[in-house]
Formats: sequence, structure tokens, C-alpha cells
Amino acid sequence: MSEQTKVVTQNGVDVAAMGETIGAVKSQPGLAKFRLRASNKWINCGQNRTRIEGFYGAGEEHSHDKTFEHDADEPKPLLGHDKATSPGEYLLVALASCVSTSVVYHAAAKGIQIESLESTLEGNIDLHGFLGLSNEIPKGFEDITVKLKIKSDASKEQLEELANMSPIADTVTRPVPVKVDIQIV
Amino acid sequence: MSEQTKVVTQNGVDVAAMGETIGAVKSQPGLAKFRLRASNKWINCGQNRTRIEGFYGAGEEHSHDKTFEHDADEPKPLLGHDKATSPGEYLLVALASCVSTSVVYHAAAKGIQIESLESTLEGNIDLHGFLGLSNEIPKGFEDITVKLKIKSDASKEQLEELANMSPIADTVTRPVPVKVDIQIV
Repeated sequence: MSEQTKVVTQNGVDVAAMGETIGAVKSQPGLAKFRLRASNKWINCGQNRTRIEGFYGAGEEHSHDKTFEHDADEPKPLLGHDKATSPGEYLLVALASCVSTSVVYHAAAKGIQIESLESTLEGNIDLHGFLGLSNEIPKGFEDITVKLKIKSDASKEQLEELANMSPIADTVTRPVPVKVDIQIV
Repeated sequence: MSEQTKVVTQNGVDVAAMGETIGAVKSQPGLAKFRLRASNKWINCGQNRTRIEGFYGAGEEHSHDKTFEHDADEPKPLLGHDKATSPGEYLLVALASCVSTSVVYHAAAKGIQIESLESTLEGNIDLHGFLGLSNEIPKGFEDITVKLKIKSDASKEQLEELANMSPIADTVTRPVPVKVDIQIV
């Protein structure tokens, strides 16, 4: 690779491309609008399959290089067959992956090297809510804890600031409207 | 299978076992407490892998029959390599799968037959939030729409009530505390 075309990366992130993306969004705010999509088909009992095919963003429609499929099921104590990850666990996947990428990308933007990053997550749910046995206990997660182990020269405070940029942490901690539209076929 | 041991299912859900679960929770409220878990390891750039191995619930620790692994990546316009589903899309997987199971289980409890159930989801994100270019635009989802197509004899209103039992819809629409704890290693 010649000097002219050398890609400079930090934490694997192309920092020049990141700067260009931020510059493009500043001059054309519409480029920042993304619309993510998923489609789901019920199979039986707690089993269903979600397909991820494409999205809108940066001013145009995109197809993923391939379709990603994700099976879900409930574990046996929740009357499922334990064939796949449960919906609640998928929320932890979303949060874990988002916190990782948020730290890594924002560290790259600030020139902070991340040597390694691992996390463990725990989320509490009390089924009284879902089962309709209590109006006071929420149906969903009561709280979630994300424990991060990061190898980096940055301070704990700096890293906390980076983790707090996570869009999924923001989605979970803030009330986000979900519109459910049912069509009987 | 003899008459005595015949399992009666509705929408694939063992309705007798469901009744027993509800009865058990009523007599021993602690059985309703679940703690879901995930562990994540960063690979490079926007790539990371989450493992789902076990959980606490119904009064004891459980290991899944096998470990479920979920790779995440960012698409190319977001400086990733498009090798896997993005964190934002995983949130839609969680929501789609949860709404499906919530409708199917609560329909089973009420004796409502679901012939088929499909959904498409769209969620809007404006990157001004994540990029730190605006304090007014949220970092995460602005809103999410879930369109359900259900084949059933139930009314639209009945089905809406079932969909509204979804723990993940509740988690997204309600502010849920996320505690981030960082350890530098």
C-alpha cells in the first residue's frame, strides 16, 4: 500500500473516514437520519425468527451484504423449548454490543487506544408484571447493570463518558414511543 | 400417548403448565424473579460477540441447553464491515420477538387461537445525538413502529391488549435504569 492510500485506524476505526462522516453530517444534516428495519415471523409457541435485510441512512437505502437471521425462543421455565436466545436476552445483546462500539468509536475519535474491552450484563425482571398479577411491578426490565473491563491508558472518568454515548443505553433509559399497528389478515 | 398424559396446547403453548406457573407464582412470589445475563467481548472496530449462557429464575440458576453466540458489527456507512447485525437492529430483534411471544402466550391463556403472526418494524435514529453534534436530538431511537399482521378470530382491540403485555415494549417505552460500572484492567 502506498503512503497516499494508507488507512490510519485507531481501535480498528478508520479515523479519516470518521472525520469525513462528521463533516458531511454538519453540512447536510439529513445524512444523519437512519431508519433501521426488521421483519419477524412466528413459528410456534415462543419460537419466532427475525430477518434483518436493509436500512435507510446517509441519504439512501442500503441492503446488507447478506440477510441476518435471528431465532428466538423461551427457556423451559418460561414454557419454551430453549432452542434460541430469549427476547429479553436479545435486549442485553443490543445493549452490550452498543456500549462496546460506543466506547471504541468515541475513543478512536479522541485518539484513545483501547487494548481490550469485555462486559457482563445482568437485567432483573419480575414476572408479576408480564403475568398481569401486579399493576405496580413493571412488565419489562426493572434495571440493568453493565460491568465493563477495559484495558486502556484512559481514565475511568473518560471511559465512563464514552460509554454514556451509547444509543441503546439511551433508548433503554429514556421513554421511547413504540407504536403498535395491528392488521387482521 | 395415554389420555392421562396428553398435553393440551394452544398456539403451541402448554396451557396446563402455564396455569401451574401462574399458580406457583401466586403462592411463592419469589419464583417470579428472573435475572437475565449476557457477556460480550470486543473483537475490532464495530465488531464484537455476545454469549448467552444462563440465567436465574423460578428460584434457581439455569444453564441454557447450549451457549448462544451473537456477533455484532456496524454497516459500511457507519464505518463497520457489515459482517453482522448492528446493535440498533438487535434492539428491533428483541422487540419483534417479544411482541410475538407476548401475543401468542396471552392469547393461549385466554383460549384465543393465533393462526399466523408476522411483523415488520422500523425505528428512527438521528446520528446528531450519537455524534455529539446536538444536545436536543436523542442518541438512541426517536420512535419505533411495529406493524403486526395476525390471522385470528380475535378482535383488533383484543390483540392490541395482548401486544401491550410485551416486556420489551415496556422496557423501551419506560425509563429503565442502566448502571455502567467500569473497571480498568
